[in-house]
Amino acid sequence: MKDIVKVGLIGFGTVGTGVVRLLTAVKRPFLRGLNFTIELVKIADIDIIRDRGVAVPAGILTTDAGEILCDPGIDIVIELVGGIEPAKSFTLKAFENGKSVITANKALIALHGKELFDAAVRAGVSYMFEGAVGGGIPIIRGITDSLNANKIESIYGILNGTTNYILTGMARDGIGYDEVLKRAQKLGYAEADPTADVSGHDALNKIVILAKLAYGANLNPETLYCEGIESITIEDIVYARELGYAVKLLAIANRYEDGRVEARVNPALVPLDSVLASVEDEFNAVEIYADAVGRQVFYGKGAGMMPTSSAVVSDTVSAASGIVTGAPSNISRIIADANGPETIDISELTLRYYLRFMVKDQPGVLAQISKVFADNRISIESVIQKGTSPRESVPLVIMTHEACEGDMRMAMKGFEGIDQVVGNVQLIRVENV
Amino acid sequence: MKDIVKVGLIGFGTVGTGVVRLLTAVKRPFLRGLNFTIELVKIADIDIIRDRGVAVPAGILTTDAGEILCDPGIDIVIELVGGIEPAKSFTLKAFENGKSVITANKALIALHGKELFDAAVRAGVSYMFEGAVGGGIPIIRGITDSLNANKIESIYGILNGTTNYILTGMARDGIGYDEVLKRAQKLGYAEADPTADVSGHDALNKIVILAKLAYGANLNPETLYCEGIESITIEDIVYARELGYAVKLLAIANRYEDGRVEARVNPALVPLDSVLASVEDEFNAVEIYADAVGRQVFYGKGAGMMPTSSAVVSDTVSAASGIVTGAPSNISRIIADANGPETIDISELTLRYYLRFMVKDQPGVLAQISKVFADNRISIESVIQKGTSPRESVPLVIMTHEACEGDMRMAMKGFEGIDQVVGNVQLIRVENV
Repeated sequence: MKDIVKVGLIGFGTVGTGVVRLLTAVKRPFLRGLNFTIELVKIADIDIIRDRGVAVPAGILTTDAGEILCDPGIDIVIELVGGIEPAKSFTLKAFENGKSVITANKALIALHGKELFDAAVRAGVSYMFEGAVGGGIPIIRGITDSLNANKIESIYGILNGTTNYILTGMARDGIGYDEVLKRAQKLGYAEADPTADVSGHDALNKIVILAKLAYGANLNPETLYCEGIESITIEDIVYARELGYAVKLLAIANRYEDGRVEARVNPALVPLDSVLASVEDEFNAVEIYADAVGRQVFYGKGAGMMPTSSAVVSDTVSAASGIVTGAPSNISRIIADANGPETIDISELTLRYYLRFMVKDQPGVLAQISKVFADNRISIESVIQKGTSPRESVPLVIMTHEACEGDMRMAMKGFEGIDQVVGNVQLIRVENV
Repeated sequence: MKDIVKVGLIGFGTVGTGVVRLLTAVKRPFLRGLNFTIELVKIADIDIIRDRGVAVPAGILTTDAGEILCDPGIDIVIELVGGIEPAKSFTLKAFENGKSVITANKALIALHGKELFDAAVRAGVSYMFEGAVGGGIPIIRGITDSLNANKIESIYGILNGTTNYILTGMARDGIGYDEVLKRAQKLGYAEADPTADVSGHDALNKIVILAKLAYGANLNPETLYCEGIESITIEDIVYARELGYAVKLLAIANRYEDGRVEARVNPALVPLDSVLASVEDEFNAVEIYADAVGRQVFYGKGAGMMPTSSAVVSDTVSAASGIVTGAPSNISRIIADANGPETIDISELTLRYYLRFMVKDQPGVLAQISKVFADNRISIESVIQKGTSPRESVPLVIMTHEACEGDMRMAMKGFEGIDQVVGNVQLIRVENV
């Protein structure tokens, strides 16, 4: 039996540095329980000069990824290059050469997962990606291993730390989106260009991966509904709290009784006493409803050097065990076998809604708005109207009963025709978590 | 390669019935991803007559456990007998005959884990027990697989559904311990004899198992500090909330910087906005602090037919994979290799405390109580004194700064000498979760 598994790392950035730290540290507790050792034999990066603050054995640095991909002595490639290319070509080349690959590359898997997992199955190797969703939170293994006897019904995830940090800051400190975003950037919780996070697209890639695992769905992130947090105001957060809710950016995937599935990302009102409402700052959480275990939540740090490296090393150990025993991880086979259920468009869903109108304080406004709701078969649950001002517009907040999203979209068009409604109507979905 | 793994079940009770349901149900999602099938070939129970509402293939029921333990065709024994004997003898016999064993038997593992895991390692088989702690919550696999690159520092668990249901009911509905206990019994959340749950001993067995995995500690539950919820009153819950805390029964295991470890069970004040405070009703949660991933929480149903069977089947799949590939689970080896760190007694700990005194409303009471605190080097953080009544005793609530548990015990003795203090002083520890 093989007793040394050799690993090459491509991409010596933040997470790569964490991986090196964990793989070269002595006495990581459970690594002791293994009957083989894992040896990091080569690291490839464009920059092999910069000091990362971690000791690296002499001579293992190279600028040529090919030295790892084509070295027959290397069993596992850790791909931390990020982005689509050259990460994708590196991965396929590694498979071709019989190597297992570990990654945290969510965009690559969300976009090209099917092709890559098919290739991994053909090559008889492992392709593992725990670090791609929820950082150090073991949500991938949770679904594939721990819940393998369950039918998963719903997934509600707070899967982006930047947006959760911003929403938490707005709610706690009563300051606006722009100001909290600046603070997040200063503290390293948001990128200089925060678009991928605040637009919801980072979370969307992650929920596409979870839907792939949970439902065998091959969803294209580019065709799914995705709404970010840019339009959420401090007023919405205050009204929501008054109504008993917190505002969170949720990544959602549901399987309906007819077998169809949906996935999307949107801001959502969740009950203040729910577990998801208690998820603060940069933390992530995934709430899963499954037929045998019921409701389950996984909570932790969804990003960052050490949490993500922890997941990458955990995958590396699994893949190494698979190499030693000759049995690659079955995740690839699960995904390659995916039955690709039919999807359901967001317009067909039935949801509850929070709407905030800015209206001129004139007689008949509520009557006109109510009529648009009624005309579109939407029933109102509660109304909050605050303050009166003859000159300025005042907020009017309405919570609806369950209504069809398609009807709500028609209603939103209808509101545009009301003169006393000023600017855009804010709409936030209410989720039953 | 072996393509059918044969399983025998001993103990056809509630969880056993759930296991049969999951193993015989068609198209359990991830079971499809496996390249072998799992076949339930025999079920042993004293009662093979009663209808469990699940279809069982003809001829697989027996009253003789030996038919499973001695059948060379059976690869895996699922032991759901419960209790120490004959469960322990059955398990050792199965190992002797080269069979892997899956269990949810927390008392057996907490008390005889070391002996059993040593035997499993010698036999080269798997011994797995995900269902023993936290029901369907994947906390065992979380520690052994997902956090294998981490050093675990602390574990704070709500590990008993009965007591959490009672504390939640008291807090939400403002009714007393006895009444909520009766309701819990009626709904099946508490046993007719609830002692093992309300005394904390069920949770203690579970934290001993987690400390074994996380720290390699071989703790004897009989020597550990264990305090249940029997003395918690509705008043304590109300005062705690006023101070910003919820009352939860916590199972705690810590590793200190000097390498020593401690484990215990006691009611605790946890901040109202913490994740653990949001764990309601019969739900369980485990909060782990680990050096790479930081803070992580696993939340879900900690007991019941289907959640526990989900964990048992998940273990069965892992053990079956191990049989197919010839590599038994390394959990046994981790525990068998445990270094058994030194323990630290609760009297050496430094904690914060909530104390509730019932005092006669007479001059000088607070002075006398304060003197006892001061004499024992304990500093007071805040005092709540409510109502005045010349005839009846009134409550006096005191929160302390950090103090040594040994000093606090001396102070508790000191309070006994104060005439104006009526009855027992209530003491609840404050935990930094």
